[in-house]
Amino acid sequence: MRGRELVGQRSETVRRANLSAIARELHGRGALSRSELVARTGLTRSAIRGLISEFVAANLASETRSEPDGLPGRPSPLVQPRREAAVVLALEIAVDSLAAAIVGLDGTTIERLRIDLPRGHSSVEAVTRDLVRLTGRLRNLPRLRPALLGVGVAIVGVVRRDDGQVSTAPNLGWRDVPLGARLTTALDLGVPTFVANDADLGALIELRRGAARGADDLLFIAGEVGVGGGIVVAGRPLTGVAGYAGEIGHISVNPAGRSCRCGSTGCWETEIGEEALLRRAGLPAEGGRRAVDQVIAAAAAGEDQAVAAVNEVGRWLGIGIAGLVNVLNPRVVVLGGLFSNLAPLLIPRVEEELDRFALAAPRANVRVAAAQLGIDAPLLGAAELAFEPFLADPAAWLGARDDVAAASA
Amino acid sequence: MRGRELVGQRSETVRRANLSAIARELHGRGALSRSELVARTGLTRSAIRGLISEFVAANLASETRSEPDGLPGRPSPLVQPRREAAVVLALEIAVDSLAAAIVGLDGTTIERLRIDLPRGHSSVEAVTRDLVRLTGRLRNLPRLRPALLGVGVAIVGVVRRDDGQVSTAPNLGWRDVPLGARLTTALDLGVPTFVANDADLGALIELRRGAARGADDLLFIAGEVGVGGGIVVAGRPLTGVAGYAGEIGHISVNPAGRSCRCGSTGCWETEIGEEALLRRAGLPAEGGRRAVDQVIAAAAAGEDQAVAAVNEVGRWLGIGIAGLVNVLNPRVVVLGGLFSNLAPLLIPRVEEELDRFALAAPRANVRVAAAQLGIDAPLLGAAELAFEPFLADPAAWLGARDDVAAASA
Repeated sequence: MRGRELVGQRSETVRRANLSAIARELHGRGALSRSELVARTGLTRSAIRGLISEFVAANLASETRSEPDGLPGRPSPLVQPRREAAVVLALEIAVDSLAAAIVGLDGTTIERLRIDLPRGHSSVEAVTRDLVRLTGRLRNLPRLRPALLGVGVAIVGVVRRDDGQVSTAPNLGWRDVPLGARLTTALDLGVPTFVANDADLGALIELRRGAARGADDLLFIAGEVGVGGGIVVAGRPLTGVAGYAGEIGHISVNPAGRSCRCGSTGCWETEIGEEALLRRAGLPAEGGRRAVDQVIAAAAAGEDQAVAAVNEVGRWLGIGIAGLVNVLNPRVVVLGGLFSNLAPLLIPRVEEELDRFALAAPRANVRVAAAQLGIDAPLLGAAELAFEPFLADPAAWLGARDDVAAASA
Repeated sequence: MRGRELVGQRSETVRRANLSAIARELHGRGALSRSELVARTGLTRSAIRGLISEFVAANLASETRSEPDGLPGRPSPLVQPRREAAVVLALEIAVDSLAAAIVGLDGTTIERLRIDLPRGHSSVEAVTRDLVRLTGRLRNLPRLRPALLGVGVAIVGVVRRDDGQVSTAPNLGWRDVPLGARLTTALDLGVPTFVANDADLGALIELRRGAARGADDLLFIAGEVGVGGGIVVAGRPLTGVAGYAGEIGHISVNPAGRSCRCGSTGCWETEIGEEALLRRAGLPAEGGRRAVDQVIAAAAAGEDQAVAAVNEVGRWLGIGIAGLVNVLNPRVVVLGGLFSNLAPLLIPRVEEELDRFALAAPRANVRVAAAQLGIDAPLLGAAELAFEPFLADPAAWLGARDDVAAASA
């Protein structure tokens, strides 16, 4: 929200909204000059000065004289978010790996660990234990704990956002798991835990820092064993009534097709998921990531069966995307996961099917792009999720720090 | 928005937002007691009194002592919107009919005309001329012109909301028609024209006054020759980048199926639209509304082929809805147009397919209901569209009236 829209409000409301606008800029872009902050927020130079001084006083940012820029007049001071002054812990539960990261206030990753696991590793107890261990291996965490704002968790499953209840995660064999509460207890870090679907978080990060930057209407498609989707509409995540929206892998595209692990038949993911790719390439469907890499390499080398397999996945991918383009009229479709690795081969095929299957008007609005944040997209999206309460109202946190200071004075 | 959320804003902003809240209540529900307004807006009794006095001063509402209610204390005065103090003209361009209506400030229809036309009537010139004529036949319009706020138009086509440009209306054979500008000129009423897709407007009115009242997440499905959709997400219409969203009839559900008038193959509407129903019932696909009524009557009477035809449409309807429920996680799916007439027969079939094809979590959130506003839903939705600028900021209009009063004083 641009600051000048806020003119008609009382000063405390204005202050909080403006602090939020600045926190988002600093978190989203890192160091910025005061002039850039003026340009990007629409706030006056003197308002920016006052707001920045609050961040500096709270030790969340520092100001440095920027390099002379060769222009007349004084160079605009550079406002630098203090990376370690506020951090989050991000966790990811994928089908065949777990990951943990610490992300700093400036949006950069301070430390990151990922461990591969056999598919279906996957009891809730084992995953919880492994995540606690993985978190314990983050060297920087003990030092940064006082600056820890919260924990964000990405999971390959259907999540109720309110309370982090995993309704179902078919690829893990989970159902009705109170993951948020469990992890808060198991991690025992004294901060809240936020849980969301991995594709929703992939969409969020591609929008903020990746292929969809600047777009307000996005469809993110994450292809792995299952196919998930993250949808952003007018700048907001489409969550649906209870956070279950975006399960695009389970649109029926071929009622005469294969049965799906969800219990239905002919779901989109039976035609475009990892197993469909491997099957079409003549490999065992359960070959996993290594087999997928083999197909990618073979297709890149022009081997017939691999190319045909990728083309067939691309055809079905395009057919399904066309339908979703007609329903959602998005600006960008971002291909993530498996599809981002295959993007150079897939995108031309998808574009072709869009020309055939999508209506001309929404077709003309949309571009198809490969995800830029690769395998870490959901993990980095989880970090954004954990930063969100702070970014929405940094004043509450500045206030809390003041209280602490007053109490200890 | 509830009034009490607005506490932290400056008085003029608060006043405008509160006037809007009251205008929406009076327009949405008709006469309300002051006590009901207090309960519904969260504003204080004295704030309500002041705001109501502005509507009364502008002749937009009147206050009457309500009937004694048998409770102790004075009965709360009844605030009655003055139906004819602010009106809109609503127009609809359907495949086989045109309609015009005048809708009053209290949300009720003052006058309504519909004329049937042969399918594909449909040059832009002829439709424009017919709409101007139809409007000319509204007896009350000359008298109400000073109170006319705007014109709302529903059309069976893909519309860019900004400027009322019809990108494509396949069932009319239109492409790139600047309908908003054309109608503004042709009607020459001196008020703005707003154009939107008929299914989007059906969704709007079902949400405000029909089967989805109280829901924030809605999928409205209008079945006619084509199948259109109106999607509401978190209380806002899902328009997409350029207003083209909701073209659910052109999701590919059966790539081995029939070719569609959009140029694609196996679109959902080729399995569930009017022609599919007639074909399955053994009637000519181009039989039109009369043939459809015949099938409905035969199915209701239990005739085998008609029942089988409805069941098959229901099966495909359910398969497609299941996919959209997985993507959108809506609270209500409203069956409109053709489907609302068949709802008692269709809904059980749709529910069955939802059980089979939708994921358990979003399935548990959703109910399927018949549209309540029947064939006039898009027309009445168009009236809401034309009322929207006034409802969003009645203060601007009250102000304008003050200026007029001051100028003529």
